[in-house]
Amino acid sequence: MGETGAQGSRGTLGVAVIGTGRMGADHVRRINDVISGARVAAVADIDAGRAERLAHGIEGATAYAEPAAAMDDPGVDAVLIASPGPAHEAALLDAFARDLPVLCEKPLTPDAASALRVLEAEQKLGHRRVQVGFMRRYDAGYRALKSLLDKGAYGRPLMLHNKHRNVDTPPGFTNAMMINDSVVHEIDVTRWLLDEEITAVRVLRPAPTDNAPEGLSDPQLILFETAGGQVVDTELFVNCRFGYQVSCEAVCEAGTARIGDDHGVYVNTAGHWGGTITPGFVERFEDAYDRQVQHWVDATRRGEVEGPSCWDGYAAAAVCEAGVLAQATGDRVVVELIERPDLYR
Amino acid sequence: MGETGAQGSRGTLGVAVIGTGRMGADHVRRINDVISGARVAAVADIDAGRAERLAHGIEGATAYAEPAAAMDDPGVDAVLIASPGPAHEAALLDAFARDLPVLCEKPLTPDAASALRVLEAEQKLGHRRVQVGFMRRYDAGYRALKSLLDKGAYGRPLMLHNKHRNVDTPPGFTNAMMINDSVVHEIDVTRWLLDEEITAVRVLRPAPTDNAPEGLSDPQLILFETAGGQVVDTELFVNCRFGYQVSCEAVCEAGTARIGDDHGVYVNTAGHWGGTITPGFVERFEDAYDRQVQHWVDATRRGEVEGPSCWDGYAAAAVCEAGVLAQATGDRVVVELIERPDLYR
Amino acid sequence: MGETGAQGSRGTLGVAVIGTGRMGADHVRRINDVISGARVAAVADIDAGRAERLAHGIEGATAYAEPAAAMDDPGVDAVLIASPGPAHEAALLDAFARDLPVLCEKPLTPDAASALRVLEAEQKLGHRRVQVGFMRRYDAGYRALKSLLDKGAYGRPLMLHNKHRNVDTPPGFTNAMMINDSVVHEIDVTRWLLDEEITAVRVLRPAPTDNAPEGLSDPQLILFETAGGQVVDTELFVNCRFGYQVSCEAVCEAGTARIGDDHGVYVNTAGHWGGTITPGFVERFEDAYDRQVQHWVDATRRGEVEGPSCWDGYAAAAVCEAGVLAQATGDRVVVELIERPDLYR
Amino acid sequence: MGETGAQGSRGTLGVAVIGTGRMGADHVRRINDVISGARVAAVADIDAGRAERLAHGIEGATAYAEPAAAMDDPGVDAVLIASPGPAHEAALLDAFARDLPVLCEKPLTPDAASALRVLEAEQKLGHRRVQVGFMRRYDAGYRALKSLLDKGAYGRPLMLHNKHRNVDTPPGFTNAMMINDSVVHEIDVTRWLLDEEITAVRVLRPAPTDNAPEGLSDPQLILFETAGGQVVDTELFVNCRFGYQVSCEAVCEAGTARIGDDHGVYVNTAGHWGGTITPGFVERFEDAYDRQVQHWVDATRRGEVEGPSCWDGYAAAAVCEAGVLAQATGDRVVVELIERPDLYR
Repeated sequence: MGETGAQGSRGTLGVAVIGTGRMGADHVRRINDVISGARVAAVADIDAGRAERLAHGIEGATAYAEPAAAMDDPGVDAVLIASPGPAHEAALLDAFARDLPVLCEKPLTPDAASALRVLEAEQKLGHRRVQVGFMRRYDAGYRALKSLLDKGAYGRPLMLHNKHRNVDTPPGFTNAMMINDSVVHEIDVTRWLLDEEITAVRVLRPAPTDNAPEGLSDPQLILFETAGGQVVDTELFVNCRFGYQVSCEAVCEAGTARIGDDHGVYVNTAGHWGGTITPGFVERFEDAYDRQVQHWVDATRRGEVEGPSCWDGYAAAAVCEAGVLAQATGDRVVVELIERPDLYR
Repeated sequence: MGETGAQGSRGTLGVAVIGTGRMGADHVRRINDVISGARVAAVADIDAGRAERLAHGIEGATAYAEPAAAMDDPGVDAVLIASPGPAHEAALLDAFARDLPVLCEKPLTPDAASALRVLEAEQKLGHRRVQVGFMRRYDAGYRALKSLLDKGAYGRPLMLHNKHRNVDTPPGFTNAMMINDSVVHEIDVTRWLLDEEITAVRVLRPAPTDNAPEGLSDPQLILFETAGGQVVDTELFVNCRFGYQVSCEAVCEAGTARIGDDHGVYVNTAGHWGGTITPGFVERFEDAYDRQVQHWVDATRRGEVEGPSCWDGYAAAAVCEAGVLAQATGDRVVVELIERPDLYR
Repeated sequence: MGETGAQGSRGTLGVAVIGTGRMGADHVRRINDVISGARVAAVADIDAGRAERLAHGIEGATAYAEPAAAMDDPGVDAVLIASPGPAHEAALLDAFARDLPVLCEKPLTPDAASALRVLEAEQKLGHRRVQVGFMRRYDAGYRALKSLLDKGAYGRPLMLHNKHRNVDTPPGFTNAMMINDSVVHEIDVTRWLLDEEITAVRVLRPAPTDNAPEGLSDPQLILFETAGGQVVDTELFVNCRFGYQVSCEAVCEAGTARIGDDHGVYVNTAGHWGGTITPGFVERFEDAYDRQVQHWVDATRRGEVEGPSCWDGYAAAAVCEAGVLAQATGDRVVVELIERPDLYR
Repeated sequence: MGETGAQGSRGTLGVAVIGTGRMGADHVRRINDVISGARVAAVADIDAGRAERLAHGIEGATAYAEPAAAMDDPGVDAVLIASPGPAHEAALLDAFARDLPVLCEKPLTPDAASALRVLEAEQKLGHRRVQVGFMRRYDAGYRALKSLLDKGAYGRPLMLHNKHRNVDTPPGFTNAMMINDSVVHEIDVTRWLLDEEITAVRVLRPAPTDNAPEGLSDPQLILFETAGGQVVDTELFVNCRFGYQVSCEAVCEAGTARIGDDHGVYVNTAGHWGGTITPGFVERFEDAYDRQVQHWVDATRRGEVEGPSCWDGYAAAAVCEAGVLAQATGDRVVVELIERPDLYR
């Protein structure tokens, strides 16, 4: 087999993967077997044994228990944070201390206050270092929709209709998680597609499906208003039983554009026409995850930081907080944001 | 040509058409040239000349200026009211005085108070005489959806998503008319499909399209809550420019069912796949209008009264009133209804 | 109930229905209960009891055993022939003897030689009297496709791709019937849409489905060449098990246009998206049958003869004969037609 | 940046790319920037300047004029042949002489006789070394269809309907190229999906589109019979003007399954619903090309040879020869193949 020598500024990117749970292990596989230009140089997990088992199968990767130690590995050029949300703030500050580029899985941090601290820390660095893992921005469908809206193909966007359906929820899934873990994607999509902040949130809670666990209001209808006066509705239905569906229709002045329709093999059989619904987010967004990490690697190798910023992470956290309150009270809740710092303009 | 003699209880139904504007003239054509078992025996219009010109081309039809006079024509067995809404109450009372079966174009009357008076008058008759012209109940798509919901094919319905789009609005179209003339169809569809009363209304008004006439909030998002706890949203966009689209998706516990997708010839040309959007409600609902009148004629010839009742007309009027208030205030407005009389259970 | 007196030249058309089997009985229902402007004045069937049972329920209709006697009923203005194919020639000649307008169910007659005799008899009358029941010409989809082709919307048509699928076949269904009863519709559609005669036929017979009865080659691929050089393929699959599907795609110089896609309610459930396939031709073409008879009644009342002519019936019979030979031999078989008489240009 | 040292048996695969035209340059980009586990170690082109310009931008790649010299580069582990078809045989024999694994762009060689020589040369090696670049086998749609057929999801396949449409043809495109360059894909797809050899070919040539260059019969209808008795039709229309469309419908005993429908953003605007047609094969099959090369690299690193074999290349060449003859004569032409060698069973 051939050898690759020292590769200069466009050399293979050595990545420290922080967190080796399902998401972290999947990123390790992605970096090693799918995308181009990066390799896993270090993995870290508080479960040191799990980190070691994962590192064992990877040529040139070392296992660590501490994120900071992994970041100090001499082969490390960049950091991918895939640990649980509450551990993100510390790992981000560790990366800032070493001025390392970061791809941080969503959420940036679990609440607006901590997100604000990260925002301030990055501002002190004086330059962006973080890309937040809102991977829908890398989905081919959402990118095509964004491109149409940015070109003004159908005039100004006036409304968005989103649908977000899951087969079922894991044990312990709460109403707050319906906002923080599920709707957070529509929050980012709304802000990104419309290029406007969300200014108010309402949540309507229909009589729930019998398939919802005790205490879970499922489905829900979440309504956003934006600074530009747009109205956005999202059907969130996380125990719909029939599959995973994520779609978005932009209603513009002279047309509408929708992505996320079901495709795949078109079948006629047994009295029915149609096809199979994607069972889960992995199948639906696998390409988006691949593309996200490839884009991050490519930009990092060019010395650039692109994609969703700490501001996007902070704004999403603030809307989530308003959303959880709106969900509990039934009221329209206004979203409060600090003024946008220059670094994120 | 053959002759039809006296035809007994199943003989051709002689209809008095009240109002000879666009809708009335279209019903005259429908009765004479499209459906089976009825003929136009009399037409009435306050514009007597217009009534006479219309009657002139119809074998055996007489023109009148007064609805009551038309109803007294010896060939008349039933009444179709297609005059402007404010004239409905008087014509309905005239028909009640003669105990004639009536198909009354929507709205039953323009407001809840007058609808209540009609409701009381029909109750005094002691039997139903009126079918209200909510013709979507006769559309093949809506009927198929209703049938699926009634069978519980996918469990209980939890939400409805409606879309109601028009190319543009005629001069003088107001925000109140967006509720009273347009959303009134979704009000009836909601009540009929879910078999529940609407208990509260909200209206969200995005920043309007530049294509909206001065003063018109277009599009709007209208939200209903039902007595059964369902939530119903309706996108109303009446200056969308690209065509007429009416669709409805029922979200049930174990599946969703949607009607109103665009069909027709599927074309590949000039870099695009797809087809033509129906330009207006006539093309979209022509069959429903035909089927509505045929069903009314068939039921009437059997001596029965079916279809949407005065109660449906009254309830729609009450929800419209709440909707117009909700639209003006931005608040959630509760719908107040009298207790449902036995005649309409 | 009102009475309709003598109605002059636009009066109700009195129809003699010849043949009271499934198709004849359905036309009786259609004339009485669905369409406008006609009534059943007489019915005839060699099974006189069946004719009498059918006539019994119809105001003003008389039963006869002989077609000629029914045509002589004083209330009869026109004839609808729905008897078995072998009986058509005699009934047509009876109608010609009385110069009565005829709607003749397909086939005109069972073979080209007898069709030619009918053709000659109508020419002796000196004017067209017969409309042949190729009802697909009255289907909304085919009409839309025809309109696009006639306008040259996408340039000249170069090819047609047809699909013709049935759930299963009745006992005794033969390979010859696959051409004469099934493909005959694609023969007429091809001639009508392209406005060209079919000049040659090939039939390819794949290894059959296990669901085909012993001896039946199912599916088959039938290939037509036209006088204009177009090539037309038809998948005929009459034991496909999953439903009834009829579609046609016209491939033109600058685009393609397809009709017959499956529509109806769009459902997500149980891991699948899609809808229900029409079970049979009744559901698929019910509207076309209604429209066909309404158009025939309307034209007849105006004193005109429109729609598919005896020439169309003769040409279809000639192509069927070539098709049955092509099916048996595997060869390309040329279609022989007489020169088109002036009456049918 | 991190460095990757010597990597043992799963190390980065060093690839010699033979031919640096459009296809070769695209493979270079793919290996370097898209997929994982390989790098371009050498490029060769008879236009030595073009090879040098391409190598210049790639860390660690050397340019050569001769394929054999590139294969002798010490960093080379495997060969990707993307030169013109007539140069393939010599390059394949060079690779065999070095026992190097090869990904050879289609066609294997330009005719059946030369393909047979390659087949015999590989047999002398005693093991498979060549994967032929029939990249549709790596398209997600075709793979899903293949999986359904292999599972027997809808019973035995009876027919295939293929469509293959291009916007237009480059100057000099001939009728023979319609078979050899275009239909060759359907030839491979047919053999692979059905797992049967093609035994006979017919070609029907409709009157051509005015958009076809002088002398080109466009569109054509190509008909295959297989050893299993299946019938396969392919509409080939290479100057259709409206876009690039490749679809395949398998008609099975109990259902049909179709891939290749147009997807993407669903738009309502300007009176039309639908979306944009893919302009060319690059957009349509970009993922398939990526996946093909990734699979080849992965298998090669595991020491395995998978994918389409020299037998597939030879069989395709034999069917092409029969197809070109069938096209010229209008006859049914039988395909002659040698007995399948053990190496390819």
